[in-house]
Amino acid sequence: MERHEALAIVRKQLTEHRYQHTIGVMETAIELAKKYGADVKKAELAAIFHDYAKFRPKEEMKRIIIEQNMPSDLLQYNAELWHAPVGAYLVKTEVGIDDVDILDAIRYHTSGRANMTVLEKVVYLADYIEPGRAFPGVDEVRELAQQNLDLALLKALQNTISFLMKKNEAIYPDTFYTYNDLAKKIKGGELLNDGT
Amino acid sequence: MERHEALAIVRKQLTEHRYQHTIGVMETAIELAKKYGADVKKAELAAIFHDYAKFRPKEEMKRIIIEQNMPSDLLQYNAELWHAPVGAYLVKTEVGIDDVDILDAIRYHTSGRANMTVLEKVVYLADYIEPGRAFPGVDEVRELAQQNLDLALLKALQNTISFLMKKNEAIYPDTFYTYNDLAKKIKGGELLNDGT
Repeated sequence: MERHEALAIVRKQLTEHRYQHTIGVMETAIELAKKYGADVKKAELAAIFHDYAKFRPKEEMKRIIIEQNMPSDLLQYNAELWHAPVGAYLVKTEVGIDDVDILDAIRYHTSGRANMTVLEKVVYLADYIEPGRAFPGVDEVRELAQQNLDLALLKALQNTISFLMKKNEAIYPDTFYTYNDLAKKIKGGELLNDGT
Repeated sequence: MERHEALAIVRKQLTEHRYQHTIGVMETAIELAKKYGADVKKAELAAIFHDYAKFRPKEEMKRIIIEQNMPSDLLQYNAELWHAPVGAYLVKTEVGIDDVDILDAIRYHTSGRANMTVLEKVVYLADYIEPGRAFPGVDEVRELAQQNLDLALLKALQNTISFLMKKNEAIYPDTFYTYNDLAKKIKGGELLNDGT
């Protein structure tokens, strides 16, 4: 699918503000994909469609989570998490994209998961650091993203967990597993994605 | 078992520094048990024996974890966690204490777990705030412990998770589940242990 075609489809699903965010994620994801060796075209499409379900009514997302046998514990956590797996489903059924790598990058762009692919990491991080983002700690992650994909992702996860803990919010297990997976690999001296 | 008898047994297992810590945990646990309605005698004994296995060789602890079919993921995390479940086992087999409440309070005093009993919370927190402890954030938890057992525990868990994340250390899943369990209950407005 051509970029302009994909953008035209997603634009109808989003507010103007969220569409501009999507453009930022797309550009950042392409840059990170080139740097860290992910498929650039897949990164582009996953980024364009990552927030496809963002503005669907909660009741519709809830129904899809139940009907499609998605992990039911999603419903016990913040509804902000729902648009990612629901988005993967709708991008497949409504847009017709059936590339598993792209769909998984959409599915895990909010929660993360253990053993993320480079493409999944690229989209997660692009969503976190795209130029429109402005929150405490984002610049540090931007700088890390120029040096090492895994260290940048680890810092983003730490910031997210700290942010949720400050609000006494429960943390979705996949988010915690992503952190632990990266922490263990870094402690274990496993080869990191340093973009070289 | 009488206090002096229990203390005489545990003293042989500990350094003088760790024995003084144990006295502090015992006194704090008794105070918290009275305040929050846990069994005071059980709190006393669990506190006295909580670090019983602290100075056992790692190899012995590892062997016991394997032979006694304890959760094998323990071995993938910091060895600091091992003395708690191993302690529960040795306090049963070497000291002859077979009260399940006491043994569980020893078993979960480092990791915590979801749905902790009041006794388990009391021992966990006493270990964290006993007068000999001095680290950033401990005074805030001491003050909270005078007001609400669950809020004090939540803050202790948040501090522990933050401390581990600063070191890029993996977090044992039970520790994370303890945090999530408390966060969900507090968000859900569930009755808290406020000592009244």
